[in-house]
Amino acid sequence: MSGRPQQNSACLIVQGPDRPGLVAAVSALIARNGANISTLDQVSDNADGGNFFQRVVFQHPELTTALSKIEADLESTLTPLGMQWQLTDQSVPKRVAILASTSDHCLLELLWRHRRGEMNISIPMVISNHTNTAEDVRSFGIPFFHVPSQGPDKSEAEAQILELLRGKVDFIVLARYMQILSAEFLDEVGVPVINIHHSFLPAFIGAAPYRRAKERGVKLIGATSHYVTKDLDEGPIIEQDVTRVDHSMDAAALQIRGALVERAVLSRAVEWHAEDRVIRHGNQTIVFS
Amino acid sequence: MSGRPQQNSACLIVQGPDRPGLVAAVSALIARNGANISTLDQVSDNADGGNFFQRVVFQHPELTTALSKIEADLESTLTPLGMQWQLTDQSVPKRVAILASTSDHCLLELLWRHRRGEMNISIPMVISNHTNTAEDVRSFGIPFFHVPSQGPDKSEAEAQILELLRGKVDFIVLARYMQILSAEFLDEVGVPVINIHHSFLPAFIGAAPYRRAKERGVKLIGATSHYVTKDLDEGPIIEQDVTRVDHSMDAAALQIRGALVERAVLSRAVEWHAEDRVIRHGNQTIVFS
Amino acid sequence: MSGRPQQNSACLIVQGPDRPGLVAAVSALIARNGANISTLDQVSDNADGGNFFQRVVFQHPELTTALSKIEADLESTLTPLGMQWQLTDQSVPKRVAILASTSDHCLLELLWRHRRGEMNISIPMVISNHTNTAEDVRSFGIPFFHVPSQGPDKSEAEAQILELLRGKVDFIVLARYMQILSAEFLDEVGVPVINIHHSFLPAFIGAAPYRRAKERGVKLIGATSHYVTKDLDEGPIIEQDVTRVDHSMDAAALQIRGALVERAVLSRAVEWHAEDRVIRHGNQTIVFS
Amino acid sequence: MSGRPQQNSACLIVQGPDRPGLVAAVSALIARNGANISTLDQVSDNADGGNFFQRVVFQHPELTTALSKIEADLESTLTPLGMQWQLTDQSVPKRVAILASTSDHCLLELLWRHRRGEMNISIPMVISNHTNTAEDVRSFGIPFFHVPSQGPDKSEAEAQILELLRGKVDFIVLARYMQILSAEFLDEVGVPVINIHHSFLPAFIGAAPYRRAKERGVKLIGATSHYVTKDLDEGPIIEQDVTRVDHSMDAAALQIRGALVERAVLSRAVEWHAEDRVIRHGNQTIVFS
Repeated sequence: MSGRPQQNSACLIVQGPDRPGLVAAVSALIARNGANISTLDQVSDNADGGNFFQRVVFQHPELTTALSKIEADLESTLTPLGMQWQLTDQSVPKRVAILASTSDHCLLELLWRHRRGEMNISIPMVISNHTNTAEDVRSFGIPFFHVPSQGPDKSEAEAQILELLRGKVDFIVLARYMQILSAEFLDEVGVPVINIHHSFLPAFIGAAPYRRAKERGVKLIGATSHYVTKDLDEGPIIEQDVTRVDHSMDAAALQIRGALVERAVLSRAVEWHAEDRVIRHGNQTIVFS
Repeated sequence: MSGRPQQNSACLIVQGPDRPGLVAAVSALIARNGANISTLDQVSDNADGGNFFQRVVFQHPELTTALSKIEADLESTLTPLGMQWQLTDQSVPKRVAILASTSDHCLLELLWRHRRGEMNISIPMVISNHTNTAEDVRSFGIPFFHVPSQGPDKSEAEAQILELLRGKVDFIVLARYMQILSAEFLDEVGVPVINIHHSFLPAFIGAAPYRRAKERGVKLIGATSHYVTKDLDEGPIIEQDVTRVDHSMDAAALQIRGALVERAVLSRAVEWHAEDRVIRHGNQTIVFS
Repeated sequence: MSGRPQQNSACLIVQGPDRPGLVAAVSALIARNGANISTLDQVSDNADGGNFFQRVVFQHPELTTALSKIEADLESTLTPLGMQWQLTDQSVPKRVAILASTSDHCLLELLWRHRRGEMNISIPMVISNHTNTAEDVRSFGIPFFHVPSQGPDKSEAEAQILELLRGKVDFIVLARYMQILSAEFLDEVGVPVINIHHSFLPAFIGAAPYRRAKERGVKLIGATSHYVTKDLDEGPIIEQDVTRVDHSMDAAALQIRGALVERAVLSRAVEWHAEDRVIRHGNQTIVFS
Repeated sequence: MSGRPQQNSACLIVQGPDRPGLVAAVSALIARNGANISTLDQVSDNADGGNFFQRVVFQHPELTTALSKIEADLESTLTPLGMQWQLTDQSVPKRVAILASTSDHCLLELLWRHRRGEMNISIPMVISNHTNTAEDVRSFGIPFFHVPSQGPDKSEAEAQILELLRGKVDFIVLARYMQILSAEFLDEVGVPVINIHHSFLPAFIGAAPYRRAKERGVKLIGATSHYVTKDLDEGPIIEQDVTRVDHSMDAAALQIRGALVERAVLSRAVEWHAEDRVIRHGNQTIVFS
């Protein structure tokens, strides 16, 4: 895949308790609806009580008109078996709002890869609690909204953001957005939220991680992208990567290298989420990359 | 997967011209035979005329007795559709003969990982045109055969090797075996042969590649594992990897680094082949790793 | 280092035939001129006739006024020993012209990392044989020049480029510039020229490399950055890297991945050249990264 | 370098407070003793109060006889400047004792790479609290000692180990040795001790880390090699690396991948320590790899 919208192509995710015949049931359903499977990945997690995870991409010559009939068939076939399913039309890019602060590296990477047509997303808005990236964002033809967020009470800022987002987005990306979102916000926003943060071996929790990584003399610095849950930075991991560093680099140099890994990891996580390649299961993810 | 034999588990590979309903047909077949799919990977290569490739791992409580019935069902279901299929019992490790010369790094890696139970293989024999590794091989409890191969005429040596192999192996690994196998040998041996060779960016064809890579100042050296065809070193690629090098390393140091990559790449290729994760298609491979 | 200009800091490169006492001579020279060495890397290539390569970064409290005296001392000390040397003031960013065509990924990466202050360069101009990147380039506040290059005779275009560059740049970067520069141009321009091109294991020479890499089923695609010589794509290698790909990616997807590696490799090569970390020696480089 | 003993070659490490003229003083000293520098790496850590770290490899046609004179010169030149120094004859491999438990992957990697001549070490003994690796160790011609270590009181076992080591080793490698060494042991043994442990992003402290990494769905697993200090697993890091994993791997498969990274990381750490490439400074290391 190369991230572009796919005409007459749909993606079906099925998950739930494993039982014999599931693959047969799903593939028969797709066949009897006149569609043809191009990619199917499926894994069953026997060790953990038998969970079933499946991603199917199929083509149908008149997908738009066929979708509601396929959905009805899925409902009557899979729901009685206790399976969750989700069907998405791959010709419609997922709508993503990007939340950012002063750092531009993750934000610009997403805007740039989106403009090149490398990701199956549309970006209806960028929201920042700072204004420094406004001009860049607008040069990509994307609306920029400034929502300041000062002082301890974030409820006003969060209300404004919710108002901007309402009904307009399928998921949210925190591109180095340096505000902690409240549990209430996460409840209300109702769409997945993807975050990126630096990661080290070993972990340095708290302030000034690059300085402390330097003091410990780490040889790798990395980044982790994950879904946001109410447990800060503890949600299901989507993607991780690292880069080598050495003693000749000061903390500022480590931070530059770290930024390059962060934007790469976040951009892969967004690409995969946009193509429905990531299935959440408890605090894990199944990534059919 | 971790490479060990899997009781009551089978792997089915299906490939051929894509057509609607194939996944449904295969999964219905497995379901009606009382088996349960644990992993399914499938890809359709539309760009190239529509080829279909599928790997299914399924479990059956009494696999041994069920196999012949499943095979008959596959034959009557898939063969009329022009599909090729292959069914293997994953409780039976694939039998592999290793051919080696003086270098021991690839050979010992395979023997060691096999002994640790990390690969679903048995190793009925090691054949070498040298004797230096004999003691090591025997310390692993594996028969060692010395088949010298001097002079331009290799037909006598090849005949001896064929005699040793006959009926005893499912595939062959050339673990830095420094003899070129003839087209006649490859025809007659009738099982897949996996090779490993060093690779550089850019490529250095011919003699003394490490010295020439040093002269060019390459920054990466690598290795490629592929199936052997009559076009020497041009067969379908199974796996590749690289390692960083720098100007401080002389050609001997490059060779040491190269050997570490070679053994890692070959061992992954063998692991994947042993688990039927590699499907050959023309000069490509589909690797469901 | 983190790529920023360094006040009162200079970089000395020394290379030539190795002989006893060279390090002592250079370090004594620096000491007697009142400077202090912060970094010194030195390697002697005994295997190849004894070549000596040294990079020294030193600080002097009043570097600007001291430079000419240090240069005179270097001249009288090192030139009689047959050594080449080069002294650069690290408070003055190197001036680089970027030549580009329609692809923007390498160009934008350099402009963006330069704007973030991550590279010790200034960019007096971007020259392209197309106009599609003009607006982006100007949004970074950098002059854009369009020099069309159609038809077989490139001499007019090259003359225009030479005119634009004359006296204004310390090196040139070909950021996916799809025109072959003539030997005459290279002679006349008189500054180093850095190029980037894709690289595969194995190499695919000629047209449509991504399609052919796909046909061969390669598992890694890469990029090589090198100095341009009259032997096209055969000059000394500065940096290389690869990324993993698999059978699920079509040629377009390979190209997207390839572009990400290209911009990363080129940007490291430019960063290192700008900090005088790369010493050319015949068709090799010594990179003190 | 390729790890082999180097005749007539010595390695000098100098560290201490930075001051002008240090490089000149050291290189003049080497020159006036008739030696020639082949490699010099030096770095000054200005940010942190100005510490100076230097590694010099030099050749002398009659090194053995020259050593004591050079040492006297170093003593009278560097000690008054408050510098620490260490001079080692590279023709004499460092003597290393390996301590192991039941796991053999790190142990065998070291024995095998040593036998191939890839490391500048000799291995006078392997000590284990188990007997399962005895036969393998002896097949490499290396003495094996079994020192059981049961019950809470380790003092008897540690005393036995100290007795075996006394005067026989230059450093110790814990190759997955699953006993915690007491502070008293570390005081008494008087040589550096290198350890290896698995590392994850994020870190999982405590029991069953692979199972917990699996539950969190990590995408990278790694290993860290470090010098042992009284703060368990918190000593200065020598080397780190990671490998990619995915959702299809169970905890056993993660452990297999982890073992491959552990042996690679430990073997690089041992190689670099044996060549005096690692300088300890507080809780950091300078690694001139």
